[in-house]
Amino acid sequence: MSAPLRHTVLRSATKEVVIGADKPFCVIGERINPTGRPVLQAALREGDLSIIAKDVAAQVAGGADVLDINMGVPLTDEAELLVTAIRMVQGLTDLPVCIDSSVVEALEAGLEAYEGRALVNSCTAEDDRLAAILPLVKKYDAAIVALPNDEDEIPMEAEKRLALTEKIVRVATEEYGIAIDDIVIDPLAMPIGADSTVGRTTLEVIRGIRERWGLNTTCGASNVSFGMPGRHALNAAWLPLAMSAGMTSAIMDARTPQIVDAVRASDLMLGNDEWGMSWIAAHRARQAAEAAASPA
Amino acid sequence: MSAPLRHTVLRSATKEVVIGADKPFCVIGERINPTGRPVLQAALREGDLSIIAKDVAAQVAGGADVLDINMGVPLTDEAELLVTAIRMVQGLTDLPVCIDSSVVEALEAGLEAYEGRALVNSCTAEDDRLAAILPLVKKYDAAIVALPNDEDEIPMEAEKRLALTEKIVRVATEEYGIAIDDIVIDPLAMPIGADSTVGRTTLEVIRGIRERWGLNTTCGASNVSFGMPGRHALNAAWLPLAMSAGMTSAIMDARTPQIVDAVRASDLMLGNDEWGMSWIAAHRARQAAEAAASPA
Repeated sequence: MSAPLRHTVLRSATKEVVIGADKPFCVIGERINPTGRPVLQAALREGDLSIIAKDVAAQVAGGADVLDINMGVPLTDEAELLVTAIRMVQGLTDLPVCIDSSVVEALEAGLEAYEGRALVNSCTAEDDRLAAILPLVKKYDAAIVALPNDEDEIPMEAEKRLALTEKIVRVATEEYGIAIDDIVIDPLAMPIGADSTVGRTTLEVIRGIRERWGLNTTCGASNVSFGMPGRHALNAAWLPLAMSAGMTSAIMDARTPQIVDAVRASDLMLGNDEWGMSWIAAHRARQAAEAAASPA
Repeated sequence: MSAPLRHTVLRSATKEVVIGADKPFCVIGERINPTGRPVLQAALREGDLSIIAKDVAAQVAGGADVLDINMGVPLTDEAELLVTAIRMVQGLTDLPVCIDSSVVEALEAGLEAYEGRALVNSCTAEDDRLAAILPLVKKYDAAIVALPNDEDEIPMEAEKRLALTEKIVRVATEEYGIAIDDIVIDPLAMPIGADSTVGRTTLEVIRGIRERWGLNTTCGASNVSFGMPGRHALNAAWLPLAMSAGMTSAIMDARTPQIVDAVRASDLMLGNDEWGMSWIAAHRARQAAEAAASPA
């Protein structure tokens, strides 16, 4: 790994989280997202955001470092919902936020409302998307999740994704003055059920990104097991596989102990939890909680 | 990964198992070993091997591909015990065997008694050990687990372990005519609790071995979590980390579903379980077993 270590600094009003290969893996909780959640969708349409409070509490308890917020509900004012949700989440937790939208106006409203240094999720390598989103990232001093796919395709070859990563890095740093440390690449983790080769390709992209630029990486980690049985076990194996290749964060299930344990155990094995202090503390806390919950 | 793929072929009297990076990970069940098992030790001293039948059944049910047999009980005739155990195991299962002893006479007696093509566990890079064990490996047409440590030390630097691997490969192939495919290197997975850097070092050794020689690798996978709480979760994360770096087998706990699942999930993610056929079949079998076990 010859490229320098990169540090992506995220902040809420009061708390800082640093993503980097020499830091514990950054667990970005995926739960605040109406996709596939009809009950949440219906509530959001009514302007009822109360479910989000439960999602915040469960992800904080589960060990999330950052919370992703997506308010993409068709036929609603996404910008307004996103601003309301961001303010609500910032009132409930000091964890930094990942502002997740495909609508540029919603991203801008969210960045405007957010107190701190957000991660923006996401921007493809398409010229018009780069031109629309990167100026916002620069203006609001945020970091950006960028995806190496363009107008033509999601490339199935690792080298093509690396070429698009090169384009993203060049455009973001040279044309928009964004620091290279603030670029987080999503190597595009696809469902393994559709094609047995996609896992290896994604790992190759992660390794290539680490070796060439040292950039931080993230992915939608639950996506890999889509359509398969035993999803928790698949996700819990995928994260160490990706971490071994150099992945430094994931937008993931932060509520399932088996999955978060896989990440924290890997932190320890990779030397990012000195003396196992965090691992041992988490184990003791869980034992204490179990003892408190069991009958005397 | 520029080195060619290596295939280590193991056989019982009737069944063949191939270790290789394009094959499902080879799970070598660690359980038939009296180390740390005082009840088994006491029974073996009395010549009572009946516990082994349970160990075989549990590991076969858990999904082992190969069974390690270690009969190292102080103040017993290890060669005789090992021969009895090997014959017993071969009567109970068709899985190939890994003959595990530090006593050369016991290894030879075991190889003589074994029907098939065994894996011998293990030989260090020390000159006298190579000279004593490699001729047996050649004579009995076996494969060998070799450890890159010598008279002086267990090197803590990856490059030193790779240099000792180079020595092992050179001596085994040039001096003893052993096929390079039959050399399986144990990169020396040490307990993470003693030193936070050992995990990364071992991963670096595994990657180096894959890139330079393409050799198969194995390790005592339970060792990494020694002395830490939450050992199952640590072992279940270590295996995908090592598999992502290129490890192709492990002498491991084949009885704990969480740990075996981590390996089989990684097989799928790494493209070595096409269409997820094995993963889905195992999931269905488990569901059927649970349904059969629950009250109607």
